[in-house]
Amino acid sequence: MKIAILGFGTIGSGVEQIVNEIKSKDLMDCEVVKILDLPKNKDKSNLIVCDIKEISEDDSIDLVVETMGGIHPAYEFIMECLHHKKHVVTANKAVVAAHMTDFLQAAKEYEVEFRFEASTGGGIPWLASVQKARRVDEISSFYGIFNGTTNYILDSMNLKNEEFDVALKNAQELGYAEANPSADIDGYDVQNKVTISAALAFDAKIDMNEFPVFSMASITHKDIEYLKNHHQMIKYIGQAIQSNHQYEAFVMPMVFDEHSLEANIPSNFNIITLNGNTIGELKFYGQGAGKLPTANAIVQDILDIKNNMYYGSVSLDNELVYSDTLLQERYLIRTNSIINSACIDHIENLGANFYITTKAITTKEFKELSRTVLEKDEKAMIAKYM
Amino acid sequence: MKIAILGFGTIGSGVEQIVNEIKSKDLMDCEVVKILDLPKNKDKSNLIVCDIKEISEDDSIDLVVETMGGIHPAYEFIMECLHHKKHVVTANKAVVAAHMTDFLQAAKEYEVEFRFEASTGGGIPWLASVQKARRVDEISSFYGIFNGTTNYILDSMNLKNEEFDVALKNAQELGYAEANPSADIDGYDVQNKVTISAALAFDAKIDMNEFPVFSMASITHKDIEYLKNHHQMIKYIGQAIQSNHQYEAFVMPMVFDEHSLEANIPSNFNIITLNGNTIGELKFYGQGAGKLPTANAIVQDILDIKNNMYYGSVSLDNELVYSDTLLQERYLIRTNSIINSACIDHIENLGANFYITTKAITTKEFKELSRTVLEKDEKAMIAKYM
Repeated sequence: MKIAILGFGTIGSGVEQIVNEIKSKDLMDCEVVKILDLPKNKDKSNLIVCDIKEISEDDSIDLVVETMGGIHPAYEFIMECLHHKKHVVTANKAVVAAHMTDFLQAAKEYEVEFRFEASTGGGIPWLASVQKARRVDEISSFYGIFNGTTNYILDSMNLKNEEFDVALKNAQELGYAEANPSADIDGYDVQNKVTISAALAFDAKIDMNEFPVFSMASITHKDIEYLKNHHQMIKYIGQAIQSNHQYEAFVMPMVFDEHSLEANIPSNFNIITLNGNTIGELKFYGQGAGKLPTANAIVQDILDIKNNMYYGSVSLDNELVYSDTLLQERYLIRTNSIINSACIDHIENLGANFYITTKAITTKEFKELSRTVLEKDEKAMIAKYM
Repeated sequence: MKIAILGFGTIGSGVEQIVNEIKSKDLMDCEVVKILDLPKNKDKSNLIVCDIKEISEDDSIDLVVETMGGIHPAYEFIMECLHHKKHVVTANKAVVAAHMTDFLQAAKEYEVEFRFEASTGGGIPWLASVQKARRVDEISSFYGIFNGTTNYILDSMNLKNEEFDVALKNAQELGYAEANPSADIDGYDVQNKVTISAALAFDAKIDMNEFPVFSMASITHKDIEYLKNHHQMIKYIGQAIQSNHQYEAFVMPMVFDEHSLEANIPSNFNIITLNGNTIGELKFYGQGAGKLPTANAIVQDILDIKNNMYYGSVSLDNELVYSDTLLQERYLIRTNSIINSACIDHIENLGANFYITTKAITTKEFKELSRTVLEKDEKAMIAKYM
């Protein structure tokens, strides 16, 4: 099987490394033959070409790995490769979340495979497990820590008594966070991953713009200390549930009991949980990002395509309508402004600027609550209780 | 696909239930046509037959699910079905650990499949994940909580301040523990699961009698209290590692930091961790036993066979020699007898009848240590530090 890689950054070079390693052990008859990158990077490998047509129109290439990231030109390049009857494997969550339906339709039309295990949960075999679980069960819900950068930040704030900015800066120096950290800390990364996971878990088209996404940048060291004193920990969570042809999803900070697994996820690790009607609760933990774990997931997709392995059919045909009244939860608020029952129903003052809803409320009610709070104090921290 | 089930107990009836459910949803063209059980159980189902030949010699049956448990006659029945060119799926860890090589050879010879996902980790997709990981990585080690009964006992002792006997009795009343609990609390169940996991993880024949198995029945509430005061928790662990054509494995109590995931596994859940050279650390959590989770794993095997899915080749051809000098660890001992440096090297008295090895020692040295301690006090508790 002859492979081309689009983008020779961290992940792309990891894919070449692993393919070469297992090829040298005679474990797989696969070979990277071309790598698309910019002319300035030509000295990085003698396989580098600079025009997508040198790959898409090369009939000897069977499979294309896309590791460029971003929507454009990744979307056009993936479509072009599918149209030229090449299997495509990608780690690019942004383009998959936005265009999964197009890619799956094109792959079906041109009788090739489109796979994206590495796009969600990095090295964790999460999407394959979701598809496999759905062969037998209805998956009613999933939730988890889908982003290693924000977990690293929260873990550092907790262990080293650091403020958010200091933990973020350390994460950037270690390469865990981007120079512009917004995609991680404001939730767009998790939004993409929840969209992809929900599409596979519920076998439905999911519009990523339908569900609410809250940043975790408002979490302070004071919040973590407060929760620690109450034997709790805050984590940054993506969740989705389905029920009666409706679904609900969100990305936001969530409070966990100190003895939950989520509260104890260290460093930049991820953990994701699914619930099925016969399997019960399954949790998957591992490196959600990084060169070799992500490249490993890509190579697993390559091997699955080579071995004709299908974890379960994906039609995205279930009609699911977004609802903000499925979940009923309690919320914790920390704000410097004063909240009282005159402005918000069902609220209790816990002291030290912390408030809690006195009963479980729907997401619809919560949206109104958060609007009221954030209008008065844009730095307020709002978290859901698990 | 026409299916027969051997044994109509908890798991067997769970398999029939799930197969019927997914058949009714047109998700799988499968059907249970015969069930082997004793004459006295004939009224439980009109599919019951009492002679294995009614199944093995029935050419219309494609696949046989074995859920009888125990070595005999499970071994003979599985072999007979394989010889009659029927795929076999089993949840029976005892017979797989003892005879995996025979079964895999017979399956190869008769060109059928032999699968046993449900034998280890119940509903957790553990064995498939091990095989899949090994397609790309060398798995250097795995460890985990492989037994839900003993985890339930330890969790109850911890949460409810119960003594061992009380927690065991409750587990028996809830159906988590057998009337004769020895297979669980003395480690034979985990020994089987470690043997099966090591065979697949290292692709080698593993003799289950080579590695040490220590009971967890010596753990007292006092031990758990002592560890809690030191921010630690004790769990019952199976582990195996390989290095340079040698392997080491064991089953024994292990001490974990209170913030580890293992320390926080609740009730009767399992968690198992593998380490691979590119994937890093992966953890899998779920129900390790129970009617529907175990039946789910069996049905997943059936679907994999139906869909020609192979997670990775299994030859068991790697030559691995057992060694008790690969691991070097520290140990905690609680004993009423007096230990001092005159009888044991490298030991420190922690007070309150607790002792710790002052340096990491090999398993070979530990075996000598434990012999010395247990000779003087057969109720001594000995645990390894993670």
